Amino acid sequence: MDRSELDDFLDEQELDGYAFYDDESNSDCYYLTGFGAPDPFFAVYTPDETAALVSSLEYGRAKKEGRLDRVARLTDYGLQEKRREHSAEKATELVQAEFLADLGCESVAVGRDFPVGAADGLRNQGVSVVPDDEGIVGDIRAVKTDEEVDNVRSAQRANEAAMARAEELVAEASVDEDGVLHRPDGEVLTCEFVKQEIEISLLRNDCALDETIVACGEDAADPHDRGSGPIHANEFVIVDIFPKDKASKYHSDMTRTFLKGEPSETQREWYEVTDEARRAALDVVEAGATGDAVNQAVVDVYRDAGYPTIFTDPGTETGFIHSTGHGVGLDVHEGPSVSRDGEELQAGHIITIEPGLYDPAVGGVRIEDIVVVTEDGYENLVDYPVELVVD
Amino acid sequence: MDRSELDDFLDEQELDGYAFYDDESNSDCYYLTGFGAPDPFFAVYTPDETAALVSSLEYGRAKKEGRLDRVARLTDYGLQEKRREHSAEKATELVQAEFLADLGCESVAVGRDFPVGAADGLRNQGVSVVPDDEGIVGDIRAVKTDEEVDNVRSAQRANEAAMARAEELVAEASVDEDGVLHRPDGEVLTCEFVKQEIEISLLRNDCALDETIVACGEDAADPHDRGSGPIHANEFVIVDIFPKDKASKYHSDMTRTFLKGEPSETQREWYEVTDEARRAALDVVEAGATGDAVNQAVVDVYRDAGYPTIFTDPGTETGFIHSTGHGVGLDVHEGPSVSRDGEELQAGHIITIEPGLYDPAVGGVRIEDIVVVTEDGYENLVDYPVELVVD
Repeated sequence: MDRSELDDFLDEQELDGYAFYDDESNSDCYYLTGFGAPDPFFAVYTPDETAALVSSLEYGRAKKEGRLDRVARLTDYGLQEKRREHSAEKATELVQAEFLADLGCESVAVGRDFPVGAADGLRNQGVSVVPDDEGIVGDIRAVKTDEEVDNVRSAQRANEAAMARAEELVAEASVDEDGVLHRPDGEVLTCEFVKQEIEISLLRNDCALDETIVACGEDAADPHDRGSGPIHANEFVIVDIFPKDKASKYHSDMTRTFLKGEPSETQREWYEVTDEARRAALDVVEAGATGDAVNQAVVDVYRDAGYPTIFTDPGTETGFIHSTGHGVGLDVHEGPSVSRDGEELQAGHIITIEPGLYDPAVGGVRIEDIVVVTEDGYENLVDYPVELVVD
Repeated sequence: MDRSELDDFLDEQELDGYAFYDDESNSDCYYLTGFGAPDPFFAVYTPDETAALVSSLEYGRAKKEGRLDRVARLTDYGLQEKRREHSAEKATELVQAEFLADLGCESVAVGRDFPVGAADGLRNQGVSVVPDDEGIVGDIRAVKTDEEVDNVRSAQRANEAAMARAEELVAEASVDEDGVLHRPDGEVLTCEFVKQEIEISLLRNDCALDETIVACGEDAADPHDRGSGPIHANEFVIVDIFPKDKASKYHSDMTRTFLKGEPSETQREWYEVTDEARRAALDVVEAGATGDAVNQAVVDVYRDAGYPTIFTDPGTETGFIHSTGHGVGLDVHEGPSVSRDGEELQAGHIITIEPGLYDPAVGGVRIEDIVVVTEDGYENLVDYPVELVVD
């Protein structure tokens, strides 16, 4: 990690440090400290040291696992004694302010999601607390080292195994007279069952269970619907898997759309134009290109083919109704943006390219790859075919 | 849900509403709105209505799934137009302030974890934003309805199936000359493998995968260590499982400690005094008793048996080094506190009782039940034996 960018930021902003008060779900904090805990802890980055203030319960693990120059216990700052004189909130405020004073911090940047209770408390103690609208740590995190790319690659291998399992379930299913898919044991093949099998496959490959989308029919027309109920022949089935590697905490993200049976002409057209949009976007990806330009490539393909998009027709509820992609790393959604506001891509950015079309009358189709931006193009981390019909 | 307590709170504080800007991980927000999304959305409770301001992508689902009297889209408030004139943060600030104005809210309570960026933005627009130190929504959530109790019960059934699977793995293992446990297929039985089997069992019973603790030997002496490596005979193996029912989002939480082989006299004593502490605590549980009194029952048993506790010997790093328990519901850790600061228990509170002893020289033992507080005692939701030795 190159900390110079963060040091420059603090220098420009004339702030002494960058503070966190959060649990292990805060990826910026984890990135800077190498430490996460189930309950919120206080962490401060300064150009001189990275420090954390933790409960006694977390002290040993923080010293062992964290990349921390200084680890202090709440008891070192007399939390219990202060709690006898003050409310729990006030006691925490005093302890955090004393810790900052020991670090020589009179002013700190914080993420916009820093808890207002703690921020008001520190301000109350005379500390200047300034929300960082730039999201500087997110910008730094967006550029991956080779090791981080390998972490995503590893999650992606697990992703492909899980996707293959999902495809296998659809392939081996039989279709009854109502068009409903059945498993070899005769049970109805549901979205829930496919998700469960995906999740078990991910677990067996040391990935944690984030949510998974297996949506078919009308549900697939809502990009955020997780999907439920029986799977039918001749309908799009969107399978979107975004596992987290348990050891590294890095994610991957891939979507394929399957169809058991015979696609209609419309379904075939939707699939083909979406794949064309995917390829058009990939053609634009390289260091120096903007996320906006990559997104525009998708919009152009859809517009030329006569489909509405939210970028050409802001009110539309059908067609291409989300952005082309996003960064992936410690968070499944992070920088950079691959949308209209997307800035210059840099080598080491890991982004998704995921065009899709949606309409309750037809269903939904989405094809998503995940790639590393390079100086002259990209490396596609996905090794999985792009094929609609599953037999 | 009884909203009168929240209405009274707002009335006393002379605030117009209670606001959230968070994703589905915010249980207070989910409890009040019945809606969660992967990305932060703005939600406001007033005595008149519960309202949410969401992206177009979430609009349909919010209307369908949420318990919301009003759902608005960001586009309804001209987010895109405002973004052309202002920064993304400023545009969001303006939109949220307009939404609050439409709800007649000039002042809002927010959780202490409300994001400071949004709080400062609203304050900038003249809205009074007051962190709620009381945690009123958490207090309300802590008292469960019969339906909520059933949700926890259902997660607990899955928990017991997973615990049985863990115990089975230890039971069926053989012990080699170095004391290492081996699976029937000859592989070493590791903590990681037991966790994976627990997680698969939970998935098959429709529970989501929170982390699981399977820790043995010295690792078990750290209550927050998730555990790793081979399992050895004649050592404590702590198995702590806290699943979330996927459909209801409610958790359960149970711990058992197992030992393959022959416990030493010390291990047997530790186990027996910990079980005595568990029973002593349960004897105190009833509506009107305080969490402090329940905790004290555990402390008394340990103290009388000569073991240090953080309550009798604040500096200790061995012995009973955490609190007796906590509430469980939408969060695996929530109110009420079953510790020194624990206030009066109410009928409908769901709490854990989890005494334990820890010392790197011996390992760790913990026995945890989860119970519903009733007017004259408690209902233990756990149907699982308390037995150390696994054969």
